[in-house]
Amino acid sequence: MSAGRDYPRPLDLRHGLIDMTHGAGGRASAQLIEELFGRAFDNPWLAEGHDAARFAAERGRMVLTTDAHVVSPMFFPGGDIGSLAVHGTINDVAMAGARPMYLAASFVIQEGLPLATLERIVASMARASREARVPVIAGDTKVVEKDKGDGVFITTTGVGMVPEGVDVSGRNARAGDRVLLSGSIGDHGIAVMSCRQNLKLDSQIRSDSVALHDLVASMLQARPGIRVLRDPTRGGLGTTLNEIARQSAVGMMLQESAIPVDPAVRAACELLGLDPLYVANEGKLIAIVAADDAPAVLAAMRAHPLGAQAAQIGVVTEDPHHFVQMTTGFGGRRVVDWLSGEQLPRIC
Amino acid sequence: MSAGRDYPRPLDLRHGLIDMTHGAGGRASAQLIEELFGRAFDNPWLAEGHDAARFAAERGRMVLTTDAHVVSPMFFPGGDIGSLAVHGTINDVAMAGARPMYLAASFVIQEGLPLATLERIVASMARASREARVPVIAGDTKVVEKDKGDGVFITTTGVGMVPEGVDVSGRNARAGDRVLLSGSIGDHGIAVMSCRQNLKLDSQIRSDSVALHDLVASMLQARPGIRVLRDPTRGGLGTTLNEIARQSAVGMMLQESAIPVDPAVRAACELLGLDPLYVANEGKLIAIVAADDAPAVLAAMRAHPLGAQAAQIGVVTEDPHHFVQMTTGFGGRRVVDWLSGEQLPRIC
Repeated sequence: MSAGRDYPRPLDLRHGLIDMTHGAGGRASAQLIEELFGRAFDNPWLAEGHDAARFAAERGRMVLTTDAHVVSPMFFPGGDIGSLAVHGTINDVAMAGARPMYLAASFVIQEGLPLATLERIVASMARASREARVPVIAGDTKVVEKDKGDGVFITTTGVGMVPEGVDVSGRNARAGDRVLLSGSIGDHGIAVMSCRQNLKLDSQIRSDSVALHDLVASMLQARPGIRVLRDPTRGGLGTTLNEIARQSAVGMMLQESAIPVDPAVRAACELLGLDPLYVANEGKLIAIVAADDAPAVLAAMRAHPLGAQAAQIGVVTEDPHHFVQMTTGFGGRRVVDWLSGEQLPRIC
Repeated sequence: MSAGRDYPRPLDLRHGLIDMTHGAGGRASAQLIEELFGRAFDNPWLAEGHDAARFAAERGRMVLTTDAHVVSPMFFPGGDIGSLAVHGTINDVAMAGARPMYLAASFVIQEGLPLATLERIVASMARASREARVPVIAGDTKVVEKDKGDGVFITTTGVGMVPEGVDVSGRNARAGDRVLLSGSIGDHGIAVMSCRQNLKLDSQIRSDSVALHDLVASMLQARPGIRVLRDPTRGGLGTTLNEIARQSAVGMMLQESAIPVDPAVRAACELLGLDPLYVANEGKLIAIVAADDAPAVLAAMRAHPLGAQAAQIGVVTEDPHHFVQMTTGFGGRRVVDWLSGEQLPRIC
């Protein structure tokens, strides 16, 4: 391809702004895709230049998952909307017990967004994708008017394969199972919230945004019979456990003291009037496993850098009401309800 | 599941409005997904209630494609953003020569959108998906503030399988090949544009938005060696042919009189100062085939209801400049360039 002929001048990544022509499907769209997205993601699938990317599939169980990302602000301590859009979808694939293979990404860009900002986001996305070894093989860009968007919204879709012998589902929890958590909760939500509110918190709390598929692979290698995997994102740990309790028609009894919360996050939650149980995470997972499997899975989690703080936080119970309950530090007991209302909008 | 217990009252689909709680990941989000999306799409994959949908895969070549839809207005003669989001992605899968299997959809919804409007869009999407026999098996919803969105943006992702022996690619056109077009151009763009500008056009021009995978299957059955398939959406026929010329390093010579344009569309284009060659289509395809295959493929197209008006519109030429040229009605010749600048933003 002879870019010199096709485009009168290269994209001005330093001073340029997104305008409506970048979404009109003509020359400006092609240039944006080629010079910004194509270069950042740089892989043979995108280089084909087709709307649809082709890949070799094997016989087996495949998963498909999609997530829109609208986090505000787009940059926060520990990540940005680009890395988050990669991690979030990889994690959704991994929580089905699957090995993530490929990603597709669509961008709805606000007119007037500096090209430099878009490039920073796309570069971060490309880096996250390379680090996770899950390439972005297909994409699309649209542009909306200044007052109809907000920076960029990114929808990331993932496909993966479920290994033989693995059957992970939110419906598989049974009374007597153990509830494991891979690490401390609330970091992502507080990191986003604190920069949104321009809070000067004592310590810099960083998002835990990370791809969890390697951790999941280690856990499944230790015990392929893991029953449930779920990442407690929007709605937090409390809502996610309620979803599982409902899907599996069980109850749960948690132990508050066993749930790791970073002291700085706990302090920030107190300041903001938030309950860490409902604050979003982007790098933590819940695993529900048979009692006999719990020690081996917990050991596998703790042996992985992303599960060093892993803990058993409760047990699955029989409960016709599907309540999630918690024994508190004072020997009491409370019901952990679903998140009601709006705690933290646009957190992911 | 006992919705009565989980949700104090059913969604008010008649008078209710989307608010930020519908995107916060708690109870309101779950209710929206269950009572609106779950009911409309109603299939066993979504009923599983997981972030990732599982399906059986066969060994072979699979395709993955994604498209954000931001069409404005959301409802237009002949379709709406919901049906368009299904057709557009099915067509992208089909243009890779693949049989579409499954869709995933993400929704970025503007705060304040009437639930009745959202339900209408989702119902249209579900209808289009059922008619095409390509189910929506995974989804996601996010909500953004009133001044940060515009109704709803829908990203649809599709997966499909390429049949044995099929190898369709924008890089495969060769000098001497024939360029076929399945029907008249410009209908979609003019339908959207006319209601956007509140034009009272003589006749009601309707979008051609439709799923083309059955037409493609008939064509591939006639001749599996079809070289290129492409749907001329954003940027129109002119831009799409330029893309192919560039990817295949060839030129093209079109015959203006052979390109079907509906008289009402032609009149509207004249009124609006638009060239139909650059107006978007959502239910038309270009096929480039070997000269020997052209009669059989054209016959297969014409035998299908979506290709009744199919025509051979030109030939592929050797051209080191990769120019698309056209012989005009007056015996002249012009270069058909890429769409430059903003002709029709937010047309899909």
